[in-house]
Parts: sequence; structure tokens; C-alpha cells
Amino acid sequence: MTVSGRIASVVFALLCIPPVAAFDAFQPLPKQPPYPADNLPTKAKIALGKQLFFDRRLSDDRSVSCNSCHDLMSGGDDGRQVSVGAHGRHGQRSTPTLWNAAFYGALYQDGRSPSLEDQVQTHVLDADIMGLKDAAMLEQRIAAIDGYRQQFDRVFGGVNAVTSQNIARAIADFERTLITPDSAFDRYLRGNKRALTDQQQRGFATFIETGCAACHFWVNLAGPQPGLQLAMGEGFWELFPNYRGSRYEQQYHLLDDPGRVRVTGVEGHRYMWRVPTLRNIVVTAPYFHNGSVATLDEAVRVMAKTQLNKEVAAADVKDIVAFLQSLGGRFPRIAPPELPPDAVVE
Amino acid sequence: MTVSGRIASVVFALLCIPPVAAFDAFQPLPKQPPYPADNLPTKAKIALGKQLFFDRRLSDDRSVSCNSCHDLMSGGDDGRQVSVGAHGRHGQRSTPTLWNAAFYGALYQDGRSPSLEDQVQTHVLDADIMGLKDAAMLEQRIAAIDGYRQQFDRVFGGVNAVTSQNIARAIADFERTLITPDSAFDRYLRGNKRALTDQQQRGFATFIETGCAACHFWVNLAGPQPGLQLAMGEGFWELFPNYRGSRYEQQYHLLDDPGRVRVTGVEGHRYMWRVPTLRNIVVTAPYFHNGSVATLDEAVRVMAKTQLNKEVAAADVKDIVAFLQSLGGRFPRIAPPELPPDAVVE
Repeated sequence: MTVSGRIASVVFALLCIPPVAAFDAFQPLPKQPPYPADNLPTKAKIALGKQLFFDRRLSDDRSVSCNSCHDLMSGGDDGRQVSVGAHGRHGQRSTPTLWNAAFYGALYQDGRSPSLEDQVQTHVLDADIMGLKDAAMLEQRIAAIDGYRQQFDRVFGGVNAVTSQNIARAIADFERTLITPDSAFDRYLRGNKRALTDQQQRGFATFIETGCAACHFWVNLAGPQPGLQLAMGEGFWELFPNYRGSRYEQQYHLLDDPGRVRVTGVEGHRYMWRVPTLRNIVVTAPYFHNGSVATLDEAVRVMAKTQLNKEVAAADVKDIVAFLQSLGGRFPRIAPPELPPDAVVE
Repeated sequence: MTVSGRIASVVFALLCIPPVAAFDAFQPLPKQPPYPADNLPTKAKIALGKQLFFDRRLSDDRSVSCNSCHDLMSGGDDGRQVSVGAHGRHGQRSTPTLWNAAFYGALYQDGRSPSLEDQVQTHVLDADIMGLKDAAMLEQRIAAIDGYRQQFDRVFGGVNAVTSQNIARAIADFERTLITPDSAFDRYLRGNKRALTDQQQRGFATFIETGCAACHFWVNLAGPQPGLQLAMGEGFWELFPNYRGSRYEQQYHLLDDPGRVRVTGVEGHRYMWRVPTLRNIVVTAPYFHNGSVATLDEAVRVMAKTQLNKEVAAADVKDIVAFLQSLGGRFPRIAPPELPPDAVVE
């Protein structure tokens, strides 16, 4: 079955079942994400990945770390419409949150990476983000730091283990630890009916009835799970805008970026985007691939209109937003890692 | 005695004592900073300050929080030469670390604020940073968030307690919790002579002999402590460059920014700057008010030449850098705060 065939059948199945049964389409966030067989985690690898994640020396002018844009203290993104990379260069799309990204089948908003490993490797080598010329430049820089060189050789075995691939492996496995369990919604799903307020329960029902759950379902409220309902590396896409001609297209520049077609060249992928998670959505403004919408209530109105051709009543928007607030999970406490020092230049 | 009179005598005293006695000029970082009598901390006030510190809604386009530039996961600064504020505007100076800022007598690199409260208030109202028009705009925005309005009234008493002054009070008291104790150097000062390696001990001696300790002394390695050797609100300044005509002036644009004279209008304050802390210096690159120097060894060479008219031998630079590495303290583990949600617009 093709990916779009799969999607169509999942969506069809969801749309055909009555709202109450659709509750089964949601699951609490697992404590463990799926791991690729060729990059199983170790404590030492995760610790190394954490150092690299927070290390600005991965960028040409030493100004930008992964955390600069995927700020773990602020929703796992940076609150800007588009991010600011090395040398002050501006990106093209709004940074998505990194929290719970381990539950995506495809990475980047156009889904062009089939794994976190691939995503990290292409991202750190993107000259518009980190400003580095090529992999050799990155590897040389990291290998020049004694503390890193020793760790890489230990974690990955052998000598000269500082490769951009291993850098990506370590960071990806650190990123798989970035999970926010135990949101009010998760507690509700586990049977604590008082974990959601009356308004939030109403909002959840409205969320389903309106049709939001056709795409925003399962553990990450982002569609089927890789390694479970989807093969690892397969993504879950949706057309956005799905209904054309709304006032929002111009207002929020929804047609400026053609989305997935830019990667695949397949005309049917024009305006196709990966369905994003709704977890922690309250703290990941601004919204959409271009960061064009600043507030959550407006994002709900835009989604309902463009995706489902519905104008949602003001009271229902309030209820849905209240429900979305229940998706804020428990963020772990993090201490910045100790970074191995630079070699001193003679 | 005038401030500069005080400074001159402190510096003179330090320069006149033999290197070994100068050890007494260093003290472990206290666990508690000095608090202003009119803003004593409470648990609730600190919790509110933490929320505000991480809340991007303090900026006009909701893109920038205090943590955006003073990134607590990355040295308390942002690694850029100059920071990027709301609406993508670039600042004029490099962001200093916020860790241990509570031990400064004067805030900003030109020392124009006599307290963290004043610093925060002027900073959040700086249109080039947060993009807001005035205090009313900020207060209106925060007061529109139910969760904040209730907390302000509870923490500060009475109604309509959401003022820019109270916002600054809460944030300042949160910032006073940002202390990094127990560096290797602190453990050494407390009597554990093995806390520093042989090279670091050599570097410490060289640091003193070279003259660095003339300015970088006491608890924060940033000069006399407010509330102790200095009145609260008094700063400790130094001319930079002190010796003129070095090759570094042009190379690192050291004369482009006139420093404190811009605030006071006093010609004697041209190129005067607050002496910055050396704590956690390894992770707060790039260096100096203009972020012009990327690496610590180069910063040591520039300082020695411009401040003390000395060319430091390569081996000594290595030793001093090794000593500076011992100034990295223990960063606490932090979880992002839960932020009160926006009101939903009808």
C-alpha cells in the first residue's frame, strides 16, 4: 500500500467511526520512543549527544547550538517566525518543537528525513543554519577538542570516530529522551476522569466532532506511529490548506511555501505537510510552518476553516483551546552539560 | 570617596601586596547573594519571576523572553556577537551572562543600572529588545492573562499589581537564584588543594603575577562586592583598553563603542566598562562588550596586552586558560515553568 493509500484508509476509518469510539484513537505518551535498530542508545552516547546538543561550536561562528532554536526551556522551539542561524542568517520556516519528536516517522515539516539521525546530520551540515562548509569542517572542529575525540572513540569504538554520522547518532539518541509524559490528557486517558476539567472534556468532544482528530490522533496527536501503524521512516502528511479560497490564505501567506513538493518534485505533494504534534502546543507559538499565526485560538479557527471548512463558534474555540491546554506534559529538569574545553592555540 | 577613588585604592592595594597574600582577595561564591531591602524574596515571588523570565509574551511579537538571550542552558548568554531581539532587531552589545549577576553592584556593561530591578525594568521596556512601546503596553498584556493577574495581586498585595516595576521585582528575585557554586576554584579556596590540577594552580599564580587579579578578584572575580566593600548600586569600572595603541584595537574594534561616557557624559568615562565576572567564562564566548573575540586563549592575550601591556608566553596562556576552566560552577537543574494561558479572543 502506498503512503497516501495508508493515510487515506486511516483517515477514512477515523471519520467513519462514531466520536465515542474514536477515543480509542488516543493513547498516553509512552515513556520509551521507538529506537532504530542501528542506533540503540547507551548512557554514554546520550551524555555525549547532550553535550553536542548544547555546544555552539557546532556552528561556524560558534554562535548557534541545537538548543539555540530548539530551546528546551521554552517549548523546544524559539518563538520566532523563522529562526536565526549562524552569522545571523534567517531560516525559511518556523522551528518545530523538538519535544516528543521521537514519535514522528518523518522529520522536518516537509518530512524529507526518514529518521532523527538523518535529520540531525543534514541539519548540522546545512550552511544556512550552522554555517559550516561541509562535513570535514565539522568533524575537524569537533575532533580538535580532546575531550570530544576521546569520548567519540569510546562511545563508537575505534579511532577517528568523530564523523558527522556519529555526531548525528549521539544527538538523535539524546533527542529521543526529550519526552513530556503525564499531561492532564494522558492522565485522563489512563482513567483519571477528573484530570480534565468539564470545559476540557467538552473541548475534547468538540475537537473530535469538528474533525480535528482525523489527523491529530494517537500518542503524539500527530497521526499513526512509526514502528507501529507505519513503517519507521514513513510520514503522515496532510494538505494545508485542504479547502481553498478562505480569507486566511492571504492573511497568513499559506500558499507562499509549496511544502513537500519542493522535496519530492511530485505535483500531488504541493502544499502537503507533515501533521505536527499538538503536545505542548500552548508553549510552541507561533504556529504553522511559516509561524504566521501568533495565538492558539486563531490557529484553531484557521485550522477548522482551511482543513475542515468550518467556522467554529466562539464558545467552541474556547473549549478546544482549553482541551489543547491539557496537552502540556511534564518537562524534565535539565542541567546544562559540562562541555570539553577548546585546545589552546599557540 | 568617589567611586573612581575607591577603585584606585582597591587596585593600588592589590598591586602593592605580594602575590601570595593576594590569595585572600578571593572568596568562594556565597550561596546567598545580597538582597535589596525593598525587594526581599519570597518563594511565590521567585516562582512568578521564573515564569516571566521564560515567557515570550513579554515581547511585542511574542518571540523573545529573557531566556532567549540569557539562555540558562548555555552559559546564561546567547553565544552571538550581538543578540537578536523582537522583530529580529539586532542589539548593540554582546549579551553578558546572567549567572551570578546578583553579585554585581551595577548592571549593564556600562553599569547604567544600580540594581537588577532597574536593569530588568529598563530592559523589558527597551523597544530595541522587547519591541514594546511603553510600560502600559507591557502591563496591559500581562494583566490580560488571568493567571498572572491573580498571582501579581497575591504576591504584591492589593489589586492592579501588574506594574512594570513589580514585573521587574519578580524577575530580579528569580535572577538572584541564578548562582553557580562549588566550582573547582571554590573547592580549592575552601581548602581542597587537589581541586585544582598542577597546571591550574600554576595558572592561578600566573594570573595573579601577570596582574589579572588587580581587577578580577573577590567572590565573582569582578572586583569588590556591593553590600560589602562597595555600597549597593556602586559599580567597579576599568578602562578598556587601558594601554593604547596595540594591534588589537583595530583587529577587535575596541574603540568603536565609547562605553560608560555614553551614559554619564563624563569624558573621563570614555572606554570605561564594568569589570565582568570570570565565573563560567569557558561557556560565555564570544568575549568583551562587542563579542569580538571568539576564544578564551585569545581573550587572555588581548586582556594582557591592552590592560597590562604584557605579551604572555604561550605556555602561560595555556596555564591561565586552565585556571579559568576551574571557574565553571555547578549549574542547577531547571525545568521550564508552566505558563498561565492566554485569554481566548472572541
